[in-house]
Amino acid sequence: MRQSKLFTKTKRESPTDEVSKNAELLIRGGFVHKEMAGVYDYLPLGLQVLRKIENIIREEMNAIGGQEVFLSALQEKELWQKTNRWDDEIVDNWFKTKFKNETELGLAFTHEEPLTRLMKDFVNSYRDLPFSAYQFQNKFRNETRAKSGVMRTREFIMKDLYSFCKDEKEHNEFYEKAKEAYEKIFQRVGIGHITYLTFASGGVFSKYSHEFQALTGAGEDTIYIDEDKGIAINKEVYTDEVIENLGLSKERLVEKRAVEVGNIFTLGTRFSEALDLTYQTEKGDKKNVFMGSYGIGPARLMGTVVEALADDKGIIWPESIAPFRVHLLVLGEDKEVIKKAEEIYAELLKNKIEVLFDDRGEMSPGEKFADADLLGMPIRLVVSQRSMKESGIELKKRNEEKGKIVSQEELLDLLKLEPRA
Amino acid sequence: MRQSKLFTKTKRESPTDEVSKNAELLIRGGFVHKEMAGVYDYLPLGLQVLRKIENIIREEMNAIGGQEVFLSALQEKELWQKTNRWDDEIVDNWFKTKFKNETELGLAFTHEEPLTRLMKDFVNSYRDLPFSAYQFQNKFRNETRAKSGVMRTREFIMKDLYSFCKDEKEHNEFYEKAKEAYEKIFQRVGIGHITYLTFASGGVFSKYSHEFQALTGAGEDTIYIDEDKGIAINKEVYTDEVIENLGLSKERLVEKRAVEVGNIFTLGTRFSEALDLTYQTEKGDKKNVFMGSYGIGPARLMGTVVEALADDKGIIWPESIAPFRVHLLVLGEDKEVIKKAEEIYAELLKNKIEVLFDDRGEMSPGEKFADADLLGMPIRLVVSQRSMKESGIELKKRNEEKGKIVSQEELLDLLKLEPRA
Repeated sequence: MRQSKLFTKTKRESPTDEVSKNAELLIRGGFVHKEMAGVYDYLPLGLQVLRKIENIIREEMNAIGGQEVFLSALQEKELWQKTNRWDDEIVDNWFKTKFKNETELGLAFTHEEPLTRLMKDFVNSYRDLPFSAYQFQNKFRNETRAKSGVMRTREFIMKDLYSFCKDEKEHNEFYEKAKEAYEKIFQRVGIGHITYLTFASGGVFSKYSHEFQALTGAGEDTIYIDEDKGIAINKEVYTDEVIENLGLSKERLVEKRAVEVGNIFTLGTRFSEALDLTYQTEKGDKKNVFMGSYGIGPARLMGTVVEALADDKGIIWPESIAPFRVHLLVLGEDKEVIKKAEEIYAELLKNKIEVLFDDRGEMSPGEKFADADLLGMPIRLVVSQRSMKESGIELKKRNEEKGKIVSQEELLDLLKLEPRA
Repeated sequence: MRQSKLFTKTKRESPTDEVSKNAELLIRGGFVHKEMAGVYDYLPLGLQVLRKIENIIREEMNAIGGQEVFLSALQEKELWQKTNRWDDEIVDNWFKTKFKNETELGLAFTHEEPLTRLMKDFVNSYRDLPFSAYQFQNKFRNETRAKSGVMRTREFIMKDLYSFCKDEKEHNEFYEKAKEAYEKIFQRVGIGHITYLTFASGGVFSKYSHEFQALTGAGEDTIYIDEDKGIAINKEVYTDEVIENLGLSKERLVEKRAVEVGNIFTLGTRFSEALDLTYQTEKGDKKNVFMGSYGIGPARLMGTVVEALADDKGIIWPESIAPFRVHLLVLGEDKEVIKKAEEIYAELLKNKIEVLFDDRGEMSPGEKFADADLLGMPIRLVVSQRSMKESGIELKKRNEEKGKIVSQEELLDLLKLEPRA
């Protein structure tokens, strides 16, 4: 895409009302716009990132057999009363509204209740199990404070998957598959190396739940990591007993700040009992379905990538989720230079290489370089009088210091060879 | 996908609480689930249809230069007060909620206000115009009644595009392009032949707005169509003066029931004045940006396709938006037959032909045929002892009465040749 056509522009100044690095950089780059505290809009470049993250998650959820659905945000009071999660004293982050006839409604902060009820239409026999369903859907949470940028917001897309199994054994098998899928997701979006499988408090049906915590000073959680084993314990369950249980030793555990980028949770029959979701076993008995839930927030991942990988010049997107893989800059007003840049732009498009083309006139080289650093595409190409003197294009990776001059022929080979992360 | 793995099942009985054909068929087929009156969930097959419709719309919006964004549902009172659209006396379909500190919020029923305000960050000069931005986003409308199935709901994804131009002339050029894009969309989703460009009441800045009305008895609107010219007049502006204005003659106009499947509207400076969105002209003057808005509801399109194209056995999806292009049925328990069906399933997958494979045991041929008719995939393939005796597969299109036996070699050629709509 031509940058001259992109309606967003970068800002030199940081927003005055943001304390988080991710919001600051994402707003300055024109990726997001702040609607109000804890509520953000996604602009073209930001939406591209979000969509790429979503697609990675979708591929991994499909790979473990997840079936995609899309549930409503509006929720019935009566349904949530059955599981004792309607009362504001019990769930303190509801947004509530009403129909014109004064019937009270909630805006879903999660979807166990409606999905469990819905499955009563489809689950009858042991033959119908196991399976899992997931969605990317707007969640609403009435957070008291919101100061972590896009990492904790009052309205956000969440991928939530729910599994439905015959019993705990079948559940545990699926749970392990989900855990592996989650690890793949964090690898693929570029934060695998800082993300720890973290033991956190469980529920009635399991001793622990598992969180995936990514190390960043901007995180709200404290965890204790064993770097060699690649696992961690959340402060909330950090006791001698738990350390021993997990076969870890206190001396090797290091305290870190981290952000929860995903969690997986054994629900057991908590919801299937309350909402009477049962199936008939092979022997003809009735049993409650055994459930699990598995969440990831794509925008939180996006914020975490910004927090963890940015440098003092701006964002550094991994190739897998960058809005564009290549940022092509043309410097100066020289006709030959512009012609060459246009030629390269056309060639990249022809080869289906995603490219943002900074074709803006009236912009100094310094301004263009600063924008490229702020926006953070993985590969920067520069066409200028200088590069043409050396009969080539300057190629520099965002996460490397030095660029190099490559010929036009080399360029395409290089871009084709470089695997996408 | 294997139907035995699909968690949804068809229902023989119609839901008792639905009066609309689209909801009845979509619920019986397991495409959607009713959460409450006017609020539906999309299940795997229904979501596939919705996504395909969205992608067709997205392609056409991108083709006219639309840049995709994603705005929040939560809205600030102060913003909407500036355009005088906050008061429930003026806009009667708001859902409202609040932050914990009692700050009132609305759930967006449209997005002129936030998008106009947002553009103040990016529009300064005539050089920044024209452009357009669009989104697929969940809208909330507190409808008093909801009895048209998925065609009028209280929560629904809408594609809304907004254009930003220097003046009326530039706006009119874009408006014509948008009109053509809309016509392509209705063609591509399979209702072009019943959809009429319809003149409806305009606003301060234009005599008329344009609706796209699709003929169906389930529609809520009355329009007067000129079949030869392919245009229509909405009852709300059906006067002798308008008929004459448009160069139509009363004798040729026929009254029909129709549903509004899209609308395009000249907003002029209604919002840019109220929210002070201006740009500097070439001469250095300040002027308000001239705007337009352009809406389509993908779920309403889905409902309209069901209403308009279904027969008494079930849904008939156009190829372009069918959840799967092919429905492959295996009949009986004969091992050779099952082996052959599995072979064909594998071959279709290998050739990237979308196929739902009815591999369910314990189902009579009659039940499988009834399900295939209800679910409405464009092409039905049957592998049975009978088809194998004739050394082939039975191929029948959903919108044709008779099938034919084709050999395995012919099958792939046929499927590859048939263009997708």
